[in-house]
Amino acid sequence: MHIREMLADAERTGNPSFSFEYFPPKTAQGVQNLYDRMDRMYSFGPKFIDITWGAGGHIAELTCEMVVQAQTYLGLETCMHLTCTDMGEEKVNDALRKAYKAGCTNILALRGDPPRDHEKWEATESGFRYAKDLVAHIRKTYGQHFDIGVAGYPEGCDDNKDEELLLDHLKEKVDVGATFIVTQMFYDADNFIRWVGKVRARGITVPILPGIMPIATYASFIRRANHMNCKIPDDWMEKLEPVKNDDVAVREMGKTLVADLCRKIIAAGIPHLHFYTMNLAQATRMVLEELDWLPSANRPLKQALPWKQSLGLGRREEDVRPIFWRNRNKSYVKRTQDWDEFPNGRWGDSRSPAFGELDAYGIGLTGTNEQNRKKWGEPTCVADIANLFVRYLNKEIDYLPWSEAPLASEAEQIKDDLIDLNKRGLITVNSQPAVNGVKSTHPIHGWGPNNGYVYQKAYLELLVSPEVYKEMKGRIEHHPDLTYYAVTRSGTLETNTSSEGPNAVTWGVFPGKEIVQPTIVESISFLAWKDEAFRLGVDWSRCYEANTPSRLLLEEIMDTWYLVNIVNNDFHQPRTIFEVLGDLTVADLDKVPAPSTTNGAHEPATTNGTAAH
Amino acid sequence: MHIREMLADAERTGNPSFSFEYFPPKTAQGVQNLYDRMDRMYSFGPKFIDITWGAGGHIAELTCEMVVQAQTYLGLETCMHLTCTDMGEEKVNDALRKAYKAGCTNILALRGDPPRDHEKWEATESGFRYAKDLVAHIRKTYGQHFDIGVAGYPEGCDDNKDEELLLDHLKEKVDVGATFIVTQMFYDADNFIRWVGKVRARGITVPILPGIMPIATYASFIRRANHMNCKIPDDWMEKLEPVKNDDVAVREMGKTLVADLCRKIIAAGIPHLHFYTMNLAQATRMVLEELDWLPSANRPLKQALPWKQSLGLGRREEDVRPIFWRNRNKSYVKRTQDWDEFPNGRWGDSRSPAFGELDAYGIGLTGTNEQNRKKWGEPTCVADIANLFVRYLNKEIDYLPWSEAPLASEAEQIKDDLIDLNKRGLITVNSQPAVNGVKSTHPIHGWGPNNGYVYQKAYLELLVSPEVYKEMKGRIEHHPDLTYYAVTRSGTLETNTSSEGPNAVTWGVFPGKEIVQPTIVESISFLAWKDEAFRLGVDWSRCYEANTPSRLLLEEIMDTWYLVNIVNNDFHQPRTIFEVLGDLTVADLDKVPAPSTTNGAHEPATTNGTAAH
Repeated sequence: MHIREMLADAERTGNPSFSFEYFPPKTAQGVQNLYDRMDRMYSFGPKFIDITWGAGGHIAELTCEMVVQAQTYLGLETCMHLTCTDMGEEKVNDALRKAYKAGCTNILALRGDPPRDHEKWEATESGFRYAKDLVAHIRKTYGQHFDIGVAGYPEGCDDNKDEELLLDHLKEKVDVGATFIVTQMFYDADNFIRWVGKVRARGITVPILPGIMPIATYASFIRRANHMNCKIPDDWMEKLEPVKNDDVAVREMGKTLVADLCRKIIAAGIPHLHFYTMNLAQATRMVLEELDWLPSANRPLKQALPWKQSLGLGRREEDVRPIFWRNRNKSYVKRTQDWDEFPNGRWGDSRSPAFGELDAYGIGLTGTNEQNRKKWGEPTCVADIANLFVRYLNKEIDYLPWSEAPLASEAEQIKDDLIDLNKRGLITVNSQPAVNGVKSTHPIHGWGPNNGYVYQKAYLELLVSPEVYKEMKGRIEHHPDLTYYAVTRSGTLETNTSSEGPNAVTWGVFPGKEIVQPTIVESISFLAWKDEAFRLGVDWSRCYEANTPSRLLLEEIMDTWYLVNIVNNDFHQPRTIFEVLGDLTVADLDKVPAPSTTNGAHEPATTNGTAAH
Repeated sequence: MHIREMLADAERTGNPSFSFEYFPPKTAQGVQNLYDRMDRMYSFGPKFIDITWGAGGHIAELTCEMVVQAQTYLGLETCMHLTCTDMGEEKVNDALRKAYKAGCTNILALRGDPPRDHEKWEATESGFRYAKDLVAHIRKTYGQHFDIGVAGYPEGCDDNKDEELLLDHLKEKVDVGATFIVTQMFYDADNFIRWVGKVRARGITVPILPGIMPIATYASFIRRANHMNCKIPDDWMEKLEPVKNDDVAVREMGKTLVADLCRKIIAAGIPHLHFYTMNLAQATRMVLEELDWLPSANRPLKQALPWKQSLGLGRREEDVRPIFWRNRNKSYVKRTQDWDEFPNGRWGDSRSPAFGELDAYGIGLTGTNEQNRKKWGEPTCVADIANLFVRYLNKEIDYLPWSEAPLASEAEQIKDDLIDLNKRGLITVNSQPAVNGVKSTHPIHGWGPNNGYVYQKAYLELLVSPEVYKEMKGRIEHHPDLTYYAVTRSGTLETNTSSEGPNAVTWGVFPGKEIVQPTIVESISFLAWKDEAFRLGVDWSRCYEANTPSRLLLEEIMDTWYLVNIVNNDFHQPRTIFEVLGDLTVADLDKVPAPSTTNGAHEPATTNGTAAH
């Protein structure tokens, strides 16, 4: 989506909006941490994020990668920075192509810093000397595909303090095709508002996004302001200087000052703020909190669908997914990335799309064996595993082999039932509560446009021992409202449904639209998920040495237990599934598997794999 | 659908089912009357209907036409009789081809009566001598496409009384491919049950459909029984003879006797009865009533969708239609008959299908000018037209130019509001009340499989004068829950919706299925309907002489009024539309248009058409 459209939306509704800027970290671990942080900061509700250009070599590659990651997996609209510094036309075209393929539709076209060995900036052989050259090139090459932003300097730029000359340049950049302006950071609201007046007086009408730098520590505040030649208002210094050694006090004071700055800007009719996050969450979060702009019951995070959409190229229209990957979003996107088209409106013919294989990077269990043992301990009986799931449900741990994110807030209302099941050895892998028509703006269950109603059928997916399954199946099979699918790792699918078609388990009714049905339960994709679910369990078992009780226990579960999903089709009845499973219990919750006498009989560990065979 | 499947369904659920037999009437008016009657008898809930073969010439054509009519427009599954009498192979193949193309999947293969100039039946040149030859031929030509029935004779057939020989023939017919048996009429239940035993003893396992002839009058009862050599049990004569001159008493007694017969048959394990209706409704209805088999709150008429599906070839999967043709089902089927595929699951891309032109037979107003003037009088002011609509809403008249059937029972709950609107000159052409999730077995609103919930958004379509439209538009335009489309006969579409897509106004949620959304509101099809709606009004105006007040009034309405449809997207609020239209009133309800001084200025009648131009 073009930034212009997002801003028009903010202007129309009168709700201020904001965006976050990130830069490529230097280490692989830093990159992973940033992705996690970006994912968490999604919930702050930014309209888009901005990735700065990592001038030169692999850092430039990383910018492109981050854009892909944000668009495809995190569902974040991006704006990719692109500079001319040290870039030939070929490299520029390569970066644009990558942005295009990632589904990115916004570029911030910058001149960039001069190369280190030059005092002053000079054109490369490509002929890009000024940002305006880059703007013109992007327009020429991609027409209207990209919204193109350029930099604005309310307080001058470091190699040029001539405001009029800078405004001339800005006008030139807009005249060749730039459609929005992002400013350098500033703390002087009055000067910014004055500057906006001068910009407008030049006949520049494109939106202006003021750059806001929240205050993390006193030292970084001073350093950055100096680095950017940014004027600090006297009263700011008067307030911050006295507490400069108290980080907490600086952040508290800083949040108030920056929030006041934001309020002044908004009051001047600028509807969107651009936050320089410095890859950190806290200081930005505090400002948003102070402004009362964070999502809340009164200001719910607007999601078009109950799951995060992928904004990758060709994927924006996708609006139906199987529920199975609910807690493994990224793996679903990866396993379907080669599809020619994505389900839209209906799941469609499920026999055609083939799910990708399990051996692609990022589909199996992540983390090293040691990390995973640390996270999940060394379970030796079903009760231990159950306890792990109970801790996840109590939000004492954030991940499980089958869940790559902390428990969703909607699970709260069935948490006690889920805990009860786990305590009886029925391991709950996935679930959703029934919702019988709440407003689409509901803070927990809501999604989609305003003035709609959303619904859910209760869903439960569990790992079940063979004895429990036998009894469970008998109870479910002829229940008029329950449909189920069950399968072991290598077994055949059992079900009580007669139709092969999908069962819509989440849907929404909106003004002027067909019914939107974004999650479904369906047999073919359940079988694809089954392979992945058991594979994750096997991966987990391999975190332990062969013939250890943990390894033997997990192997036995993966080899003999059933993966079962149950839908209660009567969405007026929230507790039927739990009632039907009422008193089912695994017989020997505390039984520790005995090591086999033939070492590693089941699946030899790589270190001593020849012993038994 | 194959009759076998329908019977299996009756057997599985334990609910007895039944079917009706009709024969081709001799006159065109008789045919039209029968279609109307078949349509009304649809609501009795027959599993299928049977059309006898009109041996020879145009009556044979008529059988095929009736099959088309029943399958395509009335949504009735058919079984077509086919005889060998006087039929060459070519004619047989022609009839089979027509049945196939009509979507018919059941044939009753009969030998038929001998031609009149022969005492005994002989084979024609085609080589079809016995019914078994016809069965074999159909199987050979069409494989399993048709379910094939054959006749059974519990009391012997008129040229053969040898029961064993007849059973031999029956066995032969089944052996070459017959899959069900329909018996001749009988009144002797004990003999029938004995005969069924003998049939089964021969190893014939296909379903047997007993033929039941309800009693209309004493004379016809005796005549038919004699004609078919059908034994009348002594106690029947004892009960009917004394009242034979009292038709009402005969029907009352007859209904009790026939219902008893039916109960005995059902008790013997035969789940389906085949009624020889003699093209009449009453006697059959009385028997079904006596048996308590007519649809009711306890035994709702099962409809897969809220509208009658067309069972024409290639149309069975169709499950989405615009709401506009709700009261003009046949016209919709006609205007879409050339579509390559029919909307299924979603309305899909509405830009591709083109609606058929208005000049096809049966799309304009039916009936002669005189008949229509008689039905609808000679309205001279808006109040007169309003009054006509009020009478329709009060079920005092059965048809309107825009409604080919009496008011639907679901309109009862908004009837007072509709009447109120009409009295104020807002002419209501179509409507549906809001339904916020009632069980799919609901006697009035229910449709689709059991254990589901169905929903409706309130819908209203009206003819509105320009002044009223102006005020109405202002009120609706910015209402958060209301969407509308409005257009004059030759004007451009006005709407407050931003999306071009369809708005689902009826939908159902069922176990194990995607959401079914059988009626929608959508712009392109509304424009096609608009042409038809105004055309119907113009047709109506032409029932009156040029320059008469009725003609001038209707012409003015068709030329200047708006056709408006309004959806209340909040289906939790049943009365919003009526509240919003609250006090709107046409200014001069009683104004009679003055004849123009130039004769026929507007639209010259064919008789004096040259005067003004």
